[in-house]
Amino acid sequence: MRQGELFTKTRREAPKDEVSKNAILLTRAGYINKEMAGVYDYLPLGLRVLKKIENIIREEMNALGAQELHLTALQDKNVWEKTNRWDDANLDVWFKTTLANDKEVGLATTHEEPLTNLLTNYISSYRDLPLFVYQFQTKFRNELRAKSGILRGREFLMKDLYSFSRDEKEHQEFYEKVKESYKKIFTRVGIGEKTYLTLASGGSFSPTSHEFQAITDAGEDLIYITDEEKKEAFNKEMGVKEGKEVKAIEVGNIFPLGTRFSEAMGLEFKEEGGNSAMPVMGSYGIGVGRLMGTVVEVLSDDKGLVWPKEISPFDAHLLVLGGEDAMKRADEVYKELTNSGVEVLYDDRDVRAGEKFADADLIGISTRIVVSDKSLENGKLEVKDRATGEEEFCTLEEIIKKLK
Amino acid sequence: MRQGELFTKTRREAPKDEVSKNAILLTRAGYINKEMAGVYDYLPLGLRVLKKIENIIREEMNALGAQELHLTALQDKNVWEKTNRWDDANLDVWFKTTLANDKEVGLATTHEEPLTNLLTNYISSYRDLPLFVYQFQTKFRNELRAKSGILRGREFLMKDLYSFSRDEKEHQEFYEKVKESYKKIFTRVGIGEKTYLTLASGGSFSPTSHEFQAITDAGEDLIYITDEEKKEAFNKEMGVKEGKEVKAIEVGNIFPLGTRFSEAMGLEFKEEGGNSAMPVMGSYGIGVGRLMGTVVEVLSDDKGLVWPKEISPFDAHLLVLGGEDAMKRADEVYKELTNSGVEVLYDDRDVRAGEKFADADLIGISTRIVVSDKSLENGKLEVKDRATGEEEFCTLEEIIKKLK
Repeated sequence: MRQGELFTKTRREAPKDEVSKNAILLTRAGYINKEMAGVYDYLPLGLRVLKKIENIIREEMNALGAQELHLTALQDKNVWEKTNRWDDANLDVWFKTTLANDKEVGLATTHEEPLTNLLTNYISSYRDLPLFVYQFQTKFRNELRAKSGILRGREFLMKDLYSFSRDEKEHQEFYEKVKESYKKIFTRVGIGEKTYLTLASGGSFSPTSHEFQAITDAGEDLIYITDEEKKEAFNKEMGVKEGKEVKAIEVGNIFPLGTRFSEAMGLEFKEEGGNSAMPVMGSYGIGVGRLMGTVVEVLSDDKGLVWPKEISPFDAHLLVLGGEDAMKRADEVYKELTNSGVEVLYDDRDVRAGEKFADADLIGISTRIVVSDKSLENGKLEVKDRATGEEEFCTLEEIIKKLK
Repeated sequence: MRQGELFTKTRREAPKDEVSKNAILLTRAGYINKEMAGVYDYLPLGLRVLKKIENIIREEMNALGAQELHLTALQDKNVWEKTNRWDDANLDVWFKTTLANDKEVGLATTHEEPLTNLLTNYISSYRDLPLFVYQFQTKFRNELRAKSGILRGREFLMKDLYSFSRDEKEHQEFYEKVKESYKKIFTRVGIGEKTYLTLASGGSFSPTSHEFQAITDAGEDLIYITDEEKKEAFNKEMGVKEGKEVKAIEVGNIFPLGTRFSEAMGLEFKEEGGNSAMPVMGSYGIGVGRLMGTVVEVLSDDKGLVWPKEISPFDAHLLVLGGEDAMKRADEVYKELTNSGVEVLYDDRDVRAGEKFADADLIGISTRIVVSDKSLENGKLEVKDRATGEEEFCTLEEIIKKLK
């Protein structure tokens, strides 16, 4: 895409009403726009990153054998009353609204109740289990404060996975698989080194749960690192005061739910022997926008955003500096890269070199390619890695090989 | 995917609380689940069709040079008060709710206001125009009645495209391009023959607008066909009583908006000569779920759903009938098709042949392939087209060629 055609523009100044690094950088670079606190539009660059993260998660969910569906935001009060979670005293982040016929409905904050209720139509035998289903769906949470950009939204895209197993042993096997799947996801989006499997409270559902906590000063949680090599930690709420205390953001959580929801919704199945039993459940969340915000908090530098290759909005940022000959060569490079399936943002604007470099650093595309009068002399293009700052001179063929 | 692993199952009986053909068939075949009137979950098969329709629309929007973004559902009252559309008297399908700090917010029914407001940050010169942006986003509309399945939802996925042009002439050029783009979309999803470009009222925005109306008895609109060959019609509301009167569903609409929103939001740009001017806008909607429901109403038959190839949830439905040898051959066929990039639903369940055939007809995948003892004798597989009912015997190589 030609940068001149992209409708967003970068800005030098931080927006006045933002305090978090992720919101400031993403707004300045034209990735997001704030509608109100905790409610952000995703502009073309931002949506590209969000979709790339979504696709990585989808691949890993499918590899677990999970089936994708899409549940609704609007929620029936009757379904939630069965677990007492309609009550604001038990679930304190509901948005509630009213149908034209005066019936009260809620906006989903999570989906254990409607999904378990739905599955009573489909699960009746041990042959129907285990079953793993997931979705990417917009959640609404009526947070009192929402000052941390896309890290804590009132409206946000979430991947939620739910497991239904025949017994505790089968549940535990899947639960362990999800741990490994989550580690792959956080590694692929570029924060694997900073992310710790953290033992946490299970809230009202179970004695313990697990969180994936990414270390950054922007974190709202405190964790104690107990094993640096295995990347394991305790959440401070567990009361264990050993290890190094650090701030961290919860980028994922996995919860054993037992049979609490199966029981409330009347989800039963016949065991092989003929007895009735209830599926043992688990739920597994990743906030897709929050994960994107965390990558910004962890990896960006004082010049701007830094995207790992797998989630960079484009594979390459092509800059042209110089006169007509350079421009002609850059047009060719753009065409050849695009034809080879490389996604390129092409800065062909008529602005100063300094502005192009500053914009490229702010936007943070993983690889920068410069076509200048110099490259016309030696036949090679300047290629710079945004994360390491390393520069090299490559032929177009070498670049295509590197980026595909 | 093996059908035994798909968690949904077909049912023989129509759901008691549904009257529309689309809801009955889609529920019986396991594509959707009703949460409440006009609010439907998309189960794995349903989500696959929805995503294929979404991708067709996305391809055609990108071909128009439009940029994809994603705006929010939660809406700021102040923004909508600028056009007086916060008032329920002017926009009568709002869901409204309240932030934890008691501020009232709405759930978006459409996005002219927030988008025009957002663009005041980015549009300032004639060089920034024309600009076309679109999104796939969940809309909420507080319909009093919602009895037509996924044709009229209280919560539904919509593609909305907006255009911002320098003047009326530039606007008109794009408006005509969108007409052609929409024709391509409706042809690709399989209802091109049934869909008429229909002149309709422009409501409070303009004297006229255009609708794309698909003829079916399930339609809530009445149109008069004025040109059968060119596929043109008038909406009954226009008062023109010539041509044949038929029932139809509005599957798309395109609206000239003039400068009404630009003016209200203060969206201005400098013309080449230096004068200030306001962008001329248009909006262009397609309800993605409604389009899927319309395909069901138009194409399904008394045996069940009938999906055109481009939006079939799988490319092929593979059925195995017979003993161990047929099963072994079917496993090979499944593997080879899958490895060739053909998406296959493989019915390897241990049920009667009649049940497999009835399920395949109900689910409606475009191509059915049967592996039976007979196919072992002659080395060919039975291939049936769901839409035409035509059967032929083909080698696996011929099938792969046909389906790729």
